[in-house]
Amino acid sequence: MGFELRPYIAPDFSGERFVNAPEAALQPAPADQVAPVGFHAMSIFPEYFKIGGQWLLAEESRMDCVAVYEGGRIAVKEFRRLKKGEMVVVGRTETGEEGIYVHGNGFREGRAEGELFAFRQSRSRETAFSRDYDELYEVLRHDRDRGKIVWVMGPAFAFDYDARNAFSRMIEAGYVHAVLAGNALATHDLEAAYLKTALGQNIYTQRPHPNGHYNHLDTINQVKLKGGISQFIEAEGIDNGIIYSCEKYRIPYVLAGSIRDDGPLPPVIGDVYEAQDRMRDQVRGATTVLCMATMLHSIAVGNMTPSYRVLPDGTVRQVYFYCVDISEFAVNKLSDRGSLSARGIVTNAQDFIVTLSKGLGL
Amino acid sequence: MGFELRPYIAPDFSGERFVNAPEAALQPAPADQVAPVGFHAMSIFPEYFKIGGQWLLAEESRMDCVAVYEGGRIAVKEFRRLKKGEMVVVGRTETGEEGIYVHGNGFREGRAEGELFAFRQSRSRETAFSRDYDELYEVLRHDRDRGKIVWVMGPAFAFDYDARNAFSRMIEAGYVHAVLAGNALATHDLEAAYLKTALGQNIYTQRPHPNGHYNHLDTINQVKLKGGISQFIEAEGIDNGIIYSCEKYRIPYVLAGSIRDDGPLPPVIGDVYEAQDRMRDQVRGATTVLCMATMLHSIAVGNMTPSYRVLPDGTVRQVYFYCVDISEFAVNKLSDRGSLSARGIVTNAQDFIVTLSKGLGL
Amino acid sequence: MGFELRPYIAPDFSGERFVNAPEAALQPAPADQVAPVGFHAMSIFPEYFKIGGQWLLAEESRMDCVAVYEGGRIAVKEFRRLKKGEMVVVGRTETGEEGIYVHGNGFREGRAEGELFAFRQSRSRETAFSRDYDELYEVLRHDRDRGKIVWVMGPAFAFDYDARNAFSRMIEAGYVHAVLAGNALATHDLEAAYLKTALGQNIYTQRPHPNGHYNHLDTINQVKLKGGISQFIEAEGIDNGIIYSCEKYRIPYVLAGSIRDDGPLPPVIGDVYEAQDRMRDQVRGATTVLCMATMLHSIAVGNMTPSYRVLPDGTVRQVYFYCVDISEFAVNKLSDRGSLSARGIVTNAQDFIVTLSKGLGL
Amino acid sequence: MGFELRPYIAPDFSGERFVNAPEAALQPAPADQVAPVGFHAMSIFPEYFKIGGQWLLAEESRMDCVAVYEGGRIAVKEFRRLKKGEMVVVGRTETGEEGIYVHGNGFREGRAEGELFAFRQSRSRETAFSRDYDELYEVLRHDRDRGKIVWVMGPAFAFDYDARNAFSRMIEAGYVHAVLAGNALATHDLEAAYLKTALGQNIYTQRPHPNGHYNHLDTINQVKLKGGISQFIEAEGIDNGIIYSCEKYRIPYVLAGSIRDDGPLPPVIGDVYEAQDRMRDQVRGATTVLCMATMLHSIAVGNMTPSYRVLPDGTVRQVYFYCVDISEFAVNKLSDRGSLSARGIVTNAQDFIVTLSKGLGL
Repeated sequence: MGFELRPYIAPDFSGERFVNAPEAALQPAPADQVAPVGFHAMSIFPEYFKIGGQWLLAEESRMDCVAVYEGGRIAVKEFRRLKKGEMVVVGRTETGEEGIYVHGNGFREGRAEGELFAFRQSRSRETAFSRDYDELYEVLRHDRDRGKIVWVMGPAFAFDYDARNAFSRMIEAGYVHAVLAGNALATHDLEAAYLKTALGQNIYTQRPHPNGHYNHLDTINQVKLKGGISQFIEAEGIDNGIIYSCEKYRIPYVLAGSIRDDGPLPPVIGDVYEAQDRMRDQVRGATTVLCMATMLHSIAVGNMTPSYRVLPDGTVRQVYFYCVDISEFAVNKLSDRGSLSARGIVTNAQDFIVTLSKGLGL
Repeated sequence: MGFELRPYIAPDFSGERFVNAPEAALQPAPADQVAPVGFHAMSIFPEYFKIGGQWLLAEESRMDCVAVYEGGRIAVKEFRRLKKGEMVVVGRTETGEEGIYVHGNGFREGRAEGELFAFRQSRSRETAFSRDYDELYEVLRHDRDRGKIVWVMGPAFAFDYDARNAFSRMIEAGYVHAVLAGNALATHDLEAAYLKTALGQNIYTQRPHPNGHYNHLDTINQVKLKGGISQFIEAEGIDNGIIYSCEKYRIPYVLAGSIRDDGPLPPVIGDVYEAQDRMRDQVRGATTVLCMATMLHSIAVGNMTPSYRVLPDGTVRQVYFYCVDISEFAVNKLSDRGSLSARGIVTNAQDFIVTLSKGLGL
Repeated sequence: MGFELRPYIAPDFSGERFVNAPEAALQPAPADQVAPVGFHAMSIFPEYFKIGGQWLLAEESRMDCVAVYEGGRIAVKEFRRLKKGEMVVVGRTETGEEGIYVHGNGFREGRAEGELFAFRQSRSRETAFSRDYDELYEVLRHDRDRGKIVWVMGPAFAFDYDARNAFSRMIEAGYVHAVLAGNALATHDLEAAYLKTALGQNIYTQRPHPNGHYNHLDTINQVKLKGGISQFIEAEGIDNGIIYSCEKYRIPYVLAGSIRDDGPLPPVIGDVYEAQDRMRDQVRGATTVLCMATMLHSIAVGNMTPSYRVLPDGTVRQVYFYCVDISEFAVNKLSDRGSLSARGIVTNAQDFIVTLSKGLGL
Repeated sequence: MGFELRPYIAPDFSGERFVNAPEAALQPAPADQVAPVGFHAMSIFPEYFKIGGQWLLAEESRMDCVAVYEGGRIAVKEFRRLKKGEMVVVGRTETGEEGIYVHGNGFREGRAEGELFAFRQSRSRETAFSRDYDELYEVLRHDRDRGKIVWVMGPAFAFDYDARNAFSRMIEAGYVHAVLAGNALATHDLEAAYLKTALGQNIYTQRPHPNGHYNHLDTINQVKLKGGISQFIEAEGIDNGIIYSCEKYRIPYVLAGSIRDDGPLPPVIGDVYEAQDRMRDQVRGATTVLCMATMLHSIAVGNMTPSYRVLPDGTVRQVYFYCVDISEFAVNKLSDRGSLSARGIVTNAQDFIVTLSKGLGL
């Protein structure tokens, strides 16, 4: 009676509607980065395109991008990656009449009693989250071994002693397969490991360190002086924290730059569109995504995470997407943006991760 | 090396400043509920008044109330409880020059390295709370046996399955000596126990119950029909929840009315000033106060809770005051109002109580 | 092409469904304050009950209260006002099958193109409010002369110089027919008028006044010493502010007590259920209600305000309900509670009232 | 009695402390982007360095950057712009003992009665803002002709009809000298001008446009197809909005990319560090900076804006920095980050700009 993934019910393309549907129209991109007028934009749902008599599923989708037919399959591309002449699907209907079918309920979310309500309602500080936690324990246990769990986090996540330790235990226990963050998260985390402070305050006692406002700058500067994060970790004997644990367990992490950055640390990607691409590389295989305490990264990753994943064996499964933030505004942003499959939890990310790690027995 | 209360350093009244100080001036209240012009208003700190050559400590203080000299001691009274002719201390200086001494640092909060900073700073979602939790575990373990722990909570606290269970375990384990709340908290808690819903939604699955918007009204109506909460609990076989546990373990609870109430439940006190008095009765002996998810009750209780307590043996000890809310605005309200000894924790009260109960090994 | 109220389309009771419907069941209240099992609870919509072959409209409704048949009409009563033996409507269906008809769309809100969307969506800091303001100007101009405009406000509304002046101009210009607030609003407003401060800070320059934390206490004490608000106004030459303007233009105001009160001021009603009754007395005739910067009072008044009003000539018209708060949580609370006709504006109440007064040419 | 800038009181370097102070130590950067150990980090205040017997003022400062001595003056550089061998000031004291003097009170903020309080306190929804508005009118009138006013804004600013119009009037009237924003602001603003919607909803009526979720993508795609924003404006007859007005009045605008971007629009700078540089180019001459409804850009610009400006004639004047946001957390972030001269206003940016434009008579 353990946790089971919800099965995917593919459309029955033998039905008359589909058999009689026209082929999806394709038009060449008129210039690099420009789509033909009337382009079709992708949603987070599985979408099928009738081309050459076949209904082709876009295997790696991304909201608000375009469908390009190439090599017999559908590639989903950001506008900025379009090349002149690539064949783009044109059409803005969704139920087959133009050879485009958006399969919005493949996992029958709406059918289980009461589910629809729980999924679609907006979340607040007064929402009851017990069941979400229980479900999340199961999802994480399942995907630790049979999925890919991607974590996204804002800078303040590294400010708290217990939260850093809890997340390190999650890494050690195999629940973390990629981390997406920014320069500030990595800086604060390394500052904490190196000097025991965050923005100059002791991460446990909160006592201000003398001249502590130098600590994050000194940390960045030392990393650069040593030649990089791994060299810094070795040279300074760093033995704790998020970045340390990622390095130790070879968990890939992508650090995106932002206009508020000091430094930045060496691996930070300054070009946000390249950063998007590297983030999407990690998201491509993700089966569960958890965003904590960051509106910017949550929206960015929410935009690039479809509601489904085509596994290597061809199975289609659901992608779980959680957004944890103390602000209803941030949590409910995701549903505004069409990520209907997102689950929001309104709380402090420190307590969230501590509760989670204890709930998983760590 | 266990937890120890910070010792109270009383003023040394043999010093010249005190010896030479005049007597505190007393004037009669000109009418019921009216103080003489120039009345002295109390703070949350220990205050001493020189009367008859003695420096008398106000033993049960309350912010923004007046000091009445009666029967050789200082009673601290709300304006509304003043009677014409009662002798009220007059004077608005604080360092002895009018026979009034406010002892703002009797527990030497500011002296321990870094403490001042941690106490006085405003709290935000990005504050690190690990140490606050660790300290709180110690405070609660200490005061379970050697103090009085008063809990204050808003209505949404009863909405979550895990939170209700965690708090029930706290009661069972002896960490709860009084509960202050309102009609809505009790109603939602009893609705949850009676019909498994809060405002009509299942408290675990969140599924809406058919006609569930009737559930809280039916609950109140049934309580009244049965003649009261204890009768309702027995008649309906209620066996879980906050109110149930309070009744079972004979924990006093005060329910104050508010203008948004339905019902109300029978024990709710409709007159807010009488409710204040009953709340203060519980606060009089409190050594630790925790407010969760309620701005109204937090401010009310914050106003009536001094920073110190005179124990039966005459010892003066610190009172711990915690305010837990998801809104920085609510949390920092307390410091605006002068409760400098208040500790704020910015998080969801559900996660707070679950974390707390696990941290206490429950 | 000026502003016109949306006409009310009454149900056509000659239809078969209604003709064949049974009579509404009535049962006596089994005890004071207790409704019979299966009682029908009111919504904010017009509700009709088939009694004696007639479909009787509940003329003055109130959410979550019961329908009592007395003297040939339907009275809507709070549970606490029920008397043993009063005949209460029983039944929980809404479309006639038990002689009860809830007319949820009498003003055809959902029919105008796009209206439904605008009405029902949750509001955020990012919602565009221009049209709401424009509509509000029209509503206020209409109801100044042909309606009753009730204002509800939280204490901080009195903290700002411009806001106090703007609201005073609204009163002077006839846009205010009743004010519902609490002890704190009146206290801060009178403190501002008397001593130019709010909680001891100058309301314009924000400079702290020496010993300014006494100012609100001195204000309350002086009011009591003088014998009441009007005597205080005259004795102290008060010439500005919300309460002053209410007194000058004989605008009724109801001040409800709360457990966080100091004082209280003489006219404050300490019993919250009596306060509810006095508030509902003012709401009974209201055609537009505006709540600003108070979650407690907004919910309380939202609960007691139906979506319609039966005018003296028998016409049924819509009641406009606005909730202005800086917190999405507070604004969206109203829709959670069933007040679908409520319009939320997420902003600072100071700017709201200043914008409003300028928009009305004051 | 008009508005006057507060005069700058330079340090008196003839004093003994300064005469006897040692020279500031300089050390070469050990590598590109790396500062020597013990580097001095800049604050937002005027800082002087004793080099060659002179106390040199860093003329264009930036918090958390380093002071480089080159060509007889002090250049303030981001770490990432440091070149190996550049001579960096070393030392972490601030009162002359190492030849470094941080002049924290050159504008005597703390001396005017009560000013200190108003400046340093944290702001909330309950703060009175009337005086801030009045002062801001004066600042803007002054700096329109004798300063440089830089505006920073988040994407939602373009969602509201009145707000867009008010800001356009500000541009037309000369109150806007540069705009710093991101891809989303420009996209939503152009979508509003082109299709009358924001994210598919009419910006005035809020009615959803059929297939409106395509509107922002179509807008970006059309801009690219036309070859750029100015070509798009001309080709499509765009005649309103923020970007249109900037183009019309030749107001420079910098659009920084972010990881959540669609598109992006052609002028958006994808490399965040280049974007920082272009933003700082605009900030270099700024005398007043106003940030509205964006935490990310507010922090970024707050970090790069010093509290003073050296005018062409050598005069040092204060820089005004305003942060307008509906969230106390965002507003108070700025003070956490050391921008003590920042003034926070907690409100909806729509109401803020409408109030401002009316207050300026526009």
